[in-house]
Amino acid sequence: MMGKYSIGVDFGTLSGRAVMVDVQTGEELASSTFEYPHAVMDEALPDGTPLGPDWALEDPQDYLDVFSHTIPDVLAQTHVSPDDVIGIGVDFTACTVLPVKLDGTPLCFLEQFKSNPHAYVKLWKHHAAQDKANKLNEIAEARGEKWLSRYGGKISSEWAIPKLWQILDEAPDVYDAMDCFVEATDWVIWQLTGKKTRNSCTAGYKAIWHKRDGYPSDEFFKALDPRLEHVVDEKLSRTIKTLGSKAGEITEEAARLTGLRVGTAVAVGNVDAHVCVPAVKIDGPGKMLAIMGTSTCHMLLGTEEKQVPGMCGVVEDGILPGFYGYEAGQSCVGDHFAWFIENCLTAEYVADAKTKGINIHKYLRQKAEKLRPGESGLVALDWWNGNRSVLVDVDLTGVILGMTLLTKPEEIYRALIEATAYGTRTIIEAFRNSGVPVNEFYAAGGIAEKDPMTMQIYADIINMPIKISGSSQGPALGSAIFGAVAAGKDRGGYDSIFEAGSVMGKLKDTIYTPIPENAAIYDKLFAEYKKLHDYFGRGANDVMKRLKNIKKEVVASK
Amino acid sequence: MMGKYSIGVDFGTLSGRAVMVDVQTGEELASSTFEYPHAVMDEALPDGTPLGPDWALEDPQDYLDVFSHTIPDVLAQTHVSPDDVIGIGVDFTACTVLPVKLDGTPLCFLEQFKSNPHAYVKLWKHHAAQDKANKLNEIAEARGEKWLSRYGGKISSEWAIPKLWQILDEAPDVYDAMDCFVEATDWVIWQLTGKKTRNSCTAGYKAIWHKRDGYPSDEFFKALDPRLEHVVDEKLSRTIKTLGSKAGEITEEAARLTGLRVGTAVAVGNVDAHVCVPAVKIDGPGKMLAIMGTSTCHMLLGTEEKQVPGMCGVVEDGILPGFYGYEAGQSCVGDHFAWFIENCLTAEYVADAKTKGINIHKYLRQKAEKLRPGESGLVALDWWNGNRSVLVDVDLTGVILGMTLLTKPEEIYRALIEATAYGTRTIIEAFRNSGVPVNEFYAAGGIAEKDPMTMQIYADIINMPIKISGSSQGPALGSAIFGAVAAGKDRGGYDSIFEAGSVMGKLKDTIYTPIPENAAIYDKLFAEYKKLHDYFGRGANDVMKRLKNIKKEVVASK
Repeated sequence: MMGKYSIGVDFGTLSGRAVMVDVQTGEELASSTFEYPHAVMDEALPDGTPLGPDWALEDPQDYLDVFSHTIPDVLAQTHVSPDDVIGIGVDFTACTVLPVKLDGTPLCFLEQFKSNPHAYVKLWKHHAAQDKANKLNEIAEARGEKWLSRYGGKISSEWAIPKLWQILDEAPDVYDAMDCFVEATDWVIWQLTGKKTRNSCTAGYKAIWHKRDGYPSDEFFKALDPRLEHVVDEKLSRTIKTLGSKAGEITEEAARLTGLRVGTAVAVGNVDAHVCVPAVKIDGPGKMLAIMGTSTCHMLLGTEEKQVPGMCGVVEDGILPGFYGYEAGQSCVGDHFAWFIENCLTAEYVADAKTKGINIHKYLRQKAEKLRPGESGLVALDWWNGNRSVLVDVDLTGVILGMTLLTKPEEIYRALIEATAYGTRTIIEAFRNSGVPVNEFYAAGGIAEKDPMTMQIYADIINMPIKISGSSQGPALGSAIFGAVAAGKDRGGYDSIFEAGSVMGKLKDTIYTPIPENAAIYDKLFAEYKKLHDYFGRGANDVMKRLKNIKKEVVASK
Repeated sequence: MMGKYSIGVDFGTLSGRAVMVDVQTGEELASSTFEYPHAVMDEALPDGTPLGPDWALEDPQDYLDVFSHTIPDVLAQTHVSPDDVIGIGVDFTACTVLPVKLDGTPLCFLEQFKSNPHAYVKLWKHHAAQDKANKLNEIAEARGEKWLSRYGGKISSEWAIPKLWQILDEAPDVYDAMDCFVEATDWVIWQLTGKKTRNSCTAGYKAIWHKRDGYPSDEFFKALDPRLEHVVDEKLSRTIKTLGSKAGEITEEAARLTGLRVGTAVAVGNVDAHVCVPAVKIDGPGKMLAIMGTSTCHMLLGTEEKQVPGMCGVVEDGILPGFYGYEAGQSCVGDHFAWFIENCLTAEYVADAKTKGINIHKYLRQKAEKLRPGESGLVALDWWNGNRSVLVDVDLTGVILGMTLLTKPEEIYRALIEATAYGTRTIIEAFRNSGVPVNEFYAAGGIAEKDPMTMQIYADIINMPIKISGSSQGPALGSAIFGAVAAGKDRGGYDSIFEAGSVMGKLKDTIYTPIPENAAIYDKLFAEYKKLHDYFGRGANDVMKRLKNIKKEVVASK
């Protein structure tokens, strides 16, 4: 029997990656990465047009370049015939959205909008629509909108409606000129299939769509702004495709772009975190997956729709069909450690690491892993980039507490790692307290794969064994799995995502098991974290917001 | 008329310094510094005997070496004849104390006690008697001891009685063998004059002595420990000499040690901070002097004995005769900035400063002084070494709050500087709220002299002009002023410290004046500091103490 293959393409924050996967074994035969030429635009457009604080844009041409570079590359590397590639799936960061014309042309491709920042892709971490999110939440709460509780009681400024509303408010010409406001994941699928589709995952998690209730009412949108009354019909769409279904097939134009055959099955767009779930063989409720990178996303399946305060969302069929998919998140994990390395790491250590020929992360870890839990006397709040779950507040900021004149860099470093693990435990406890079981814990992403010290700290702090993704390219593998399902059994793939996941998904042999004496100390430290978390995060002392406001005034008066 | 000269000797934490001063002009003709060969012993004695956590010892031989090196050196440098040196004064860190025999021999000079840490000098920052201080405070409070309020309601673990009690408890053989427990400042005067004296400053501030009431009662000491019932008569002394008086004259042995003439007048011992007051021409109430170095001491004269919560003490004639001398302190100022430079300063900045040939402190200041108040969004609690005033709690630890992924090292550095200024403002407000006026502010010490950015931040935060000591050797100049008073008018000196200070004291022309718009922003930031200060410092959340306890348990179980 000839081999059959599926390609998964994972669009990250700074690059896109294609992976060629054997459909029968899950083996990853080759991968290819392409860095976005425009990277993240957060200070200015290429023509010099300046961007405000908290902006983060991308250029959609970069995504097409990912297809044209990486897919031919994995084909060439593996010598797999395009005839044997039965499907392709993609996943993307989210909510990463752009305004396009009816034919899919991004407004930023049009000469007249080239210098208008609002015509570009608003990346997930574009935070400049915070005032819109605040107003939306206020109005939704005042109106008693019942969908609000499905999103932990708060819509994030990162999501579609605040971003769209920002365009309306700040660039009404762009708003008027756009025919659709689409998720980047759906837009790249559109480029492959020639057909606009919207996937149930981003519609549900990022655009307030519900399988049974649909979108919020026109009255609600009118209450935000009269011009938004018909926004769903004018700029979005009520037709949503379920994850695991087929979006269409490779068109002639896409075949030219990618080197794939016309007619190759294309899965509906998916999201980088969600797509990982079958890639680690998760097939049912109670098994939390944390994808740990610059930030962390938590995925969990449940059998009922529960209200969990501060989660990012619950969406029926939002992760795997037949289950309620719960999402939570931490907005600052790897970024947190990188900030420390860049801004706080003493020259002495850097020089010493160099002399010893050790990578600085490894050098620091060697020092930090000698410390016992509690030995540093430090506790930190991991809010350098706000708090996504369970407080849903981008205006929270970081804290380190407990320093003495003997405090060492590795102690601070370890405290930052521990803080992110306390954040994860806070999320787990929120689910449990709301009646959504968390019985097993899985981790994927760069930190899970490469940082045993951090993973042991996590195991000790959450006091659960942690299983590790068997692939270092979990999202791309997950996308390939969905690609194989889009192709279907008749073409050599699978008819069910559960079956595909059980064959193609992978776990490492390594399991991080909690060390009871560490877990006991961390229980005490977590109690301290929680007390500070609630004091600074739940309104007892809004010092972080006041400091941010003072900062804003000072910067504005400069 | 031939010139007349006085020598001031300032014993610091790591070195001693002699300065030759012209009695008629205050001009400093020469200075000479000698580093203590044993430095601070905080991990082990020279023979390897290990020290516990929070220990800090010195070897008194180092102090004698200061005399024998620096006094001949300033004589040689200036070609001043010893005949024209009319007086000598010394000042010391305090409470820095040692156990000695009747003839003044330190116990650590005796073979049998060479390996016993308790036989050495306990430096001011020896913090291992905290449990004794806690117990003493508890008992004093329970007994309603009225002297307690003169020390802000708490006796510090740095002071004489807790340190003496620690010896009794942990090394009763040393306790039994000692005939006196003396301040190092009185011990060095003893070495010069051959006579034991005790000065009113350290007796009052550090040994709970009061001009009118004397020491606490024997009953109180008995309540601490029955063996302490007669401690005052057995190990201390009820004869106290007033500051500004003469202790005695240079003996033959001291003449051989120093090169001074037998019979040269010697002032009673003094303390480094207190001795600075006349050196900046302060001659009356309402004028606060901050001596800003590794830590900061605050000196203030008042006309009445008021109870100021959290001050270090009020002592009649404790600074200048005829006034109530108030002392307060911050235990971590320069040390704080040094900690940052050593432990948190990014290699990139260090390399860049090197390339540009700029001292790293200056490099950081150049970046930090470009920031406007409030621009960093940060606020810190300056408790890296506990809090001396107004909380009197060595178990408090540092906090930094407000970090984001964009926070830069210079922002943290500036926040640490600001935190120490908020600490100073907290002290000023405590005095004012207790009816002790603070109308003017003077600063001395390395930071006052060398760091205009920090001094401007202080002026903006306390919202008062700051006058700067005219001498970079304020304590040594002050000691020389007291030396000239010990000599008296008949020998070419002065009969009054006020007259001597007005002639020999010095101020710079520079005055740091508050910038109103900065002061307005700092008012807001100080409100945030104060709220955190009270929350973490006054029992609402004792997280710092709990973390320290967890740390102790973990270290003990290692």
